[in-house]
Amino acid sequence: MTEAPRFLRPVKAPAANVGKAVTFDTPLPLDCGRSLAPFTVAYMTYGALNADKSNAVLICHALTGDQFVASDHPITGKPGWWTTMVGPGKPIDTDRFFVICANVIGGCMGSTGPAETDPATGQPFGLNFPLVTIRDMVRAQKRLVDHLGIEKLLAVVGGSMGGMQALQWAASYPESLRAVVPIACAARHSAQNIAFHEVGRQAIMADPDWRGGEYQLHGTRPAKGLAVARMAAHITYVSEMALQNKFGRNLQNRDAKSFQFTPDFQIESYLHHQGASFVDRFDANSYLYITRAMDYFDLAEEHGGLLSEVFRVNAARFCIVSFSSDWLFPPFENKRIAHALNAVAAQVSFVEISSDKGHDAFLLDEPEMFATVRGFLNHAASDLI
Amino acid sequence: MTEAPRFLRPVKAPAANVGKAVTFDTPLPLDCGRSLAPFTVAYMTYGALNADKSNAVLICHALTGDQFVASDHPITGKPGWWTTMVGPGKPIDTDRFFVICANVIGGCMGSTGPAETDPATGQPFGLNFPLVTIRDMVRAQKRLVDHLGIEKLLAVVGGSMGGMQALQWAASYPESLRAVVPIACAARHSAQNIAFHEVGRQAIMADPDWRGGEYQLHGTRPAKGLAVARMAAHITYVSEMALQNKFGRNLQNRDAKSFQFTPDFQIESYLHHQGASFVDRFDANSYLYITRAMDYFDLAEEHGGLLSEVFRVNAARFCIVSFSSDWLFPPFENKRIAHALNAVAAQVSFVEISSDKGHDAFLLDEPEMFATVRGFLNHAASDLI
Repeated sequence: MTEAPRFLRPVKAPAANVGKAVTFDTPLPLDCGRSLAPFTVAYMTYGALNADKSNAVLICHALTGDQFVASDHPITGKPGWWTTMVGPGKPIDTDRFFVICANVIGGCMGSTGPAETDPATGQPFGLNFPLVTIRDMVRAQKRLVDHLGIEKLLAVVGGSMGGMQALQWAASYPESLRAVVPIACAARHSAQNIAFHEVGRQAIMADPDWRGGEYQLHGTRPAKGLAVARMAAHITYVSEMALQNKFGRNLQNRDAKSFQFTPDFQIESYLHHQGASFVDRFDANSYLYITRAMDYFDLAEEHGGLLSEVFRVNAARFCIVSFSSDWLFPPFENKRIAHALNAVAAQVSFVEISSDKGHDAFLLDEPEMFATVRGFLNHAASDLI
Repeated sequence: MTEAPRFLRPVKAPAANVGKAVTFDTPLPLDCGRSLAPFTVAYMTYGALNADKSNAVLICHALTGDQFVASDHPITGKPGWWTTMVGPGKPIDTDRFFVICANVIGGCMGSTGPAETDPATGQPFGLNFPLVTIRDMVRAQKRLVDHLGIEKLLAVVGGSMGGMQALQWAASYPESLRAVVPIACAARHSAQNIAFHEVGRQAIMADPDWRGGEYQLHGTRPAKGLAVARMAAHITYVSEMALQNKFGRNLQNRDAKSFQFTPDFQIESYLHHQGASFVDRFDANSYLYITRAMDYFDLAEEHGGLLSEVFRVNAARFCIVSFSSDWLFPPFENKRIAHALNAVAAQVSFVEISSDKGHDAFLLDEPEMFATVRGFLNHAASDLI
């Protein structure tokens, strides 16, 4: 029998529930100069890998996503976050494709992150966890793909931060993929987006229950701060018009204003719900680390600011998808990627889908997105499977 | 000699520094059903009232503004918040006009608000202060204008929440003004704007130093929560493009990313500064009350949702000013006011000024706004003074 742990378990699924997991002993070098060893990548797969291993599609998740792209979430019990896109007969068809989705390092669903135990101390990493980048996340995924014996992915697909990872895959491992589908993302995080992230981090770190990041040792959780961070972020995921159409100035379960500070408006109750349900499934330190990884993302940076140089050696096909009302990653940011690819004569298609759903459209029922991704993947796979 | 107060003074100027102030004993009826008595209105005036009292211009301040529109702020020492607009020879010319600007009730610069002493208990009001509305603020201003012996204001001018008050003046006291200049505002607060306000309030109320609103009694201040609220709000005051042009992804006083959670980017340092300087001059409970007043603002509500009905009996001239990159009060919200006025054949002019400065443009150097306001006021005053 082992001793009871001295610290509170992080907010994450019990180890048995994170799906598959592989632990690597060879260190993972990180952009910050440090390395992680050992490190674990938790992941899920759907469908079957074909004999020549040519039908693998890697899906990269967004900031608060995880590996449960097409199966029930072990904490919330809710369906996977992209069941409209991924599954038998769906645009990313698991009857044809072998779909892999891994929790990012720095995350809190089984991959090594700040809530896990630091082998050097036997304590949770907390802020001793190294700051990871989008490229580091992709490095860890490459280890997983190698581990699965896949030499060349059919495609890497992702929305939001998942789209950043898809772009990074094309930049870091151009020989290891045939197609790339970055959706609702950018090649760099904007000043406004960094600003919103910093507000969220400050809200978490202002919560005394955060305890300098060592809340697990103290048996506390910075739930209020994390909820405020989520509420602020959530506003950026939806369009002004969507909020106005859905909630407007409607009151919540009352006929008249209360003249108090309790939530009077439906939009307030909705935001409170977003905040409260988030803290039940997400680790606050992971939120700090992953937002920072997004802030640091600037694909052109190593190429003298010339985004097209990133893709000069690329033989992959690209399909860039954006949404008209997305103000977190506006169409012009997505278009910038397409222009850079055009400049080096890469194979690229760009679509701006008309939607009033804002950034979250990529997670919702958007038939034009489904048709675009389905057609693009089928074309990419046509001479292979 | 009086006893030393048992509670911490609120964040506000010492009584001697709030400019002029008048205390009314006759109760001020409030929309919530309660009333305030006595109540104080702190204000400043600039220029001289002419013999027939026809040259008075009331300026209404925004959420975090105050009466120091054209003179140094007693706490920060900084110039008044609209010195580009108000002063000798300026668009609102104090050589010609008698300018009045009052701190709103619920505020923290001398007018009765939550940080003041409740005469019923001898303690600070805190959350026992009644929830006030934009109409209540305007009711208090009307008392001041009556007190000054002014029967008819030449104009009421304001930006943002000040614009809401200007509109409310036209709705509540159509016989008491000749001209109205609502700038960068709306006739109702949108769902998205309510959402941002609620994030700010939750950040304040999550701060343990808020102490259920009784922080003055405990000698604490919810500085961290108020700073987070200000940071989130500040993002909404500027355009994405302005942030990108001013800060982009530039690092602050360093050559490379720190791979830590300290502010690496200029935009982060800028936001921290906005948060830190705000808590030195503003009361957290006032922030709760005033944001709530804005949330509750919906001018058409009492008229069956028909905004034009609000202005049916109005003989005043209106000049509606909006800014192209303002996403807090987008031009279409301003235009909606103009359309409502057109529908009842009111005298209205509408201008959308092309600017990349976002909502804050109304406080900045915008020559087209200056020319518009100067021309409009001169015209309104042409047969009077």
